[in-house]
Amino acid sequence: MTRPSNDCLLRALLREPTEQTPIWLMRQAGRYLPEYCETRRRAGSFLQLCRNPALACEVTLQPLTRYDLDAAILFSDILTVPDAMGLGLYFTDGEGPRFERPLREEWAIRDLSAPDPWDHLRYVMDAVSEIRRALNNSVPLIGFAGSPYTLACYMVEGASSSDYRHIKRMLYERPDLLHRILSVTADAVSRYLNAQIDSGAQAVMIFDSWGGSLSAAAYREFSLPYLQRIVASLIRERDGERVPSIVFTKGGGLWLESIAATGCDAIGLDWTIDIGEARRRVGHLVALQGNLDPGVLFASPNRVAAEARKVLDSYGLDNTGHVFNLGHGISQFTPPENVTALVGAVHEHSRISGKKRHEMPLAG
Amino acid sequence: MTRPSNDCLLRALLREPTEQTPIWLMRQAGRYLPEYCETRRRAGSFLQLCRNPALACEVTLQPLTRYDLDAAILFSDILTVPDAMGLGLYFTDGEGPRFERPLREEWAIRDLSAPDPWDHLRYVMDAVSEIRRALNNSVPLIGFAGSPYTLACYMVEGASSSDYRHIKRMLYERPDLLHRILSVTADAVSRYLNAQIDSGAQAVMIFDSWGGSLSAAAYREFSLPYLQRIVASLIRERDGERVPSIVFTKGGGLWLESIAATGCDAIGLDWTIDIGEARRRVGHLVALQGNLDPGVLFASPNRVAAEARKVLDSYGLDNTGHVFNLGHGISQFTPPENVTALVGAVHEHSRISGKKRHEMPLAG
Repeated sequence: MTRPSNDCLLRALLREPTEQTPIWLMRQAGRYLPEYCETRRRAGSFLQLCRNPALACEVTLQPLTRYDLDAAILFSDILTVPDAMGLGLYFTDGEGPRFERPLREEWAIRDLSAPDPWDHLRYVMDAVSEIRRALNNSVPLIGFAGSPYTLACYMVEGASSSDYRHIKRMLYERPDLLHRILSVTADAVSRYLNAQIDSGAQAVMIFDSWGGSLSAAAYREFSLPYLQRIVASLIRERDGERVPSIVFTKGGGLWLESIAATGCDAIGLDWTIDIGEARRRVGHLVALQGNLDPGVLFASPNRVAAEARKVLDSYGLDNTGHVFNLGHGISQFTPPENVTALVGAVHEHSRISGKKRHEMPLAG
Repeated sequence: MTRPSNDCLLRALLREPTEQTPIWLMRQAGRYLPEYCETRRRAGSFLQLCRNPALACEVTLQPLTRYDLDAAILFSDILTVPDAMGLGLYFTDGEGPRFERPLREEWAIRDLSAPDPWDHLRYVMDAVSEIRRALNNSVPLIGFAGSPYTLACYMVEGASSSDYRHIKRMLYERPDLLHRILSVTADAVSRYLNAQIDSGAQAVMIFDSWGGSLSAAAYREFSLPYLQRIVASLIRERDGERVPSIVFTKGGGLWLESIAATGCDAIGLDWTIDIGEARRRVGHLVALQGNLDPGVLFASPNRVAAEARKVLDSYGLDNTGHVFNLGHGISQFTPPENVTALVGAVHEHSRISGKKRHEMPLAG
C-alpha cells in the first residue's frame, strides 16, 4: 500500500512541505448537506447510520464528492466507545446523546473494562475498511476517538452538561474513582484507534472536546496524562508509512506547550487563538490544524474567502505544518456553497503564497 | 462618606496590602440559597425581583447575613440595559432570557439609542441607594453591567445561543452594523455604570461573558475597544475615594495583556488559567479576581477548603492585589454550607500566609 495520490494532509501533519495547504473540516459529513440528511433519513436514526458500514461509508464520501477536500474522516461518534463499555447510548430528539446507565457508583466503576474493538466495535472497523476501498487511495482517511476526559464527562453525567456537576464532584472528592474511569477509557481508546489504524485509518485524531472545562491544574492531572498515554500507545507506522496523530483540546489555547509535549504530531486549535501566535509557541514541535471561526461560514462566500486568507496569512508565507480546518465542527446552518468558497480560497491563496515565498530573495 | 469599615476589597482592587484576602462570589445572591428562592417566590418572577428595589436589596444582603463576605454585589441582571433600549426582555421557564424584538434589521439598528438610566433604569439606582443605606458602610457595594459584545449577543440572537449564528453573520458580513450596536451599547453601559456610582456603587464590574466566543482578531475589534471606552468614561473618584473597575472576559485567558491595557484596575479570571501564571503576566499592572472552579463547590467542605488554599498559594505568599472569587457564577446546586467552608478557608489561610511572609528573612 502506498501513500494516497493526494498526500498533502499527511505531509503537512508530518511538517513536510506541501504545494498548497490541505483542508478538511470537522464534521464535514453532516447535517448542513442535504444528501447527508437524506441518507440519515434512510438509515432511520443517527445511531443506525453510525452502525451501518455501507451507509457510514456513503456519508463519509459525500463531502468529497462536492468539495475538493484533502482528507476523509470516518463518520462515527465519539460515544460508540462508552456504548461498547455497556453504558447504553441513546439519542433523544433535540437533547443530544444520553446514557441509560451513567457511571456514578463505585462498584460500576470498579467493574468497568476496556472492550475489544474487534468484537464490540466491529461495525466501525468494517466502515473504515469499506471507506478505504471506496477512496481508492485518492485522499487519506482520518480515524478518531474522544479523549478519556471528554468521554468520562458523558459517562458520569449521562448526558451533555452545562455545569458538569457529577464529574466535578467526583474529580474533587474521589479523584481515585475518576482516575480509574480515565485509565480504563484510555486503554479502550488506544485499542480502538489502533484497530482503526489496522483497518486502514492513515491518521488519527483525539477529540478532547471538554478538556477546556477544567482548571489548568485539573487538566494537567485528569486529561493530559491520558492523552499522552494514548499517543504513546499508537501504532506509529503501518505499511511503511507514518500514521500521524492530532490532539484537539477545545479551549486549550493556554496549554499548547503541554499538549505538544504529549508526543502528538499535530495540535488542533479552536478559533480563539491566533494561529500565528500558536505557531510561534509550538510550531517547531508540532503541526497545527485549524483554526477558522465556524461562524465565518454564516457570512457570504466572499467574506468566507477573505477570512480564510487571514488565517493562512497569520500562519505565515511558509505553510509547512499547517492543515486548514475550522476551530470547531461545521454548523448545520452552514450554506453548502460557502464550503466551496472556503476550499477554493485555501488552496488558491496558499499556492500564491508558496510562489511568493519562492520569489523572495534569500536574504529576505 | 468614608471607606467602609471592611475595605479589604477596595484595597485589594487598588493593589494596596490587606491583612487577609477579600472574597465575594459571582451570583452570591442566588438560587443555591433557600432564602433567595423564598424572596423570589414572593416577588412573583425573576424580573419583578430585579425591578423591586426593596426586594432586590433584601436578596443582595442575604449572603452577607450567612457568610463573612467582603463585598455585596447589586442584585440585578445584565439584560436590564437592552430592555431599557426597548427590546422587550422576558424570561421563559427553563430556557432563560429572551427578547421580544431581536435586533437584526438595519433600520432598527440605526434607530437604537442609549437610554437615560435615571429615567428607564431608575429602579436599579433606587436599589443601589437602598442597599448602601442597609449596608451602613460595613462592606463595599459592587455595581455591574454586561459588556457591549455580550449584550449584543443577546440583543441580536434574541436569546442565549450555542452557535451565535446571527451575530457572527453580522460580525463578518456587516461589521458596520455591529459596530453601531456596540457603540450605542457602550454609551448606554457607561451612563448606566456612572449612574450606579452616583447612587453609591463603590466598585464596578463589567461582565464580558461571551467575549470568549470570539476569535482573537474579532475580540480585538469587537469587544476590547468597547471595554476600553467604558473604562475610560467611568467616574474615577467619588467622595474622595477611588472607584475601582473590574473587567471579566470569560475565556479571555489568552488576552490578559490586552485586557490589562484597557485601564481597568482588576481583571476577573475564569478557572482555566493558573492564577500564578496570570499574575506573572499582568500582576504588575492590575489586581486579579478569581479563580476557583465553581465545580469545586460540589465536593465536601474539606475539599473546598483545600482547593481554595491551592488558589491562594498559586497567587503567592504576598496576597496584595488578589480578590478571591469563583471563576464563574456560583451554581444553583451548591450546598450552602460549602460557602461557609470556602469563606473561612480563604480568610484563615491568607492570614497565615501573611504571618509567614512577615517571618521570612528579608534575604528570602
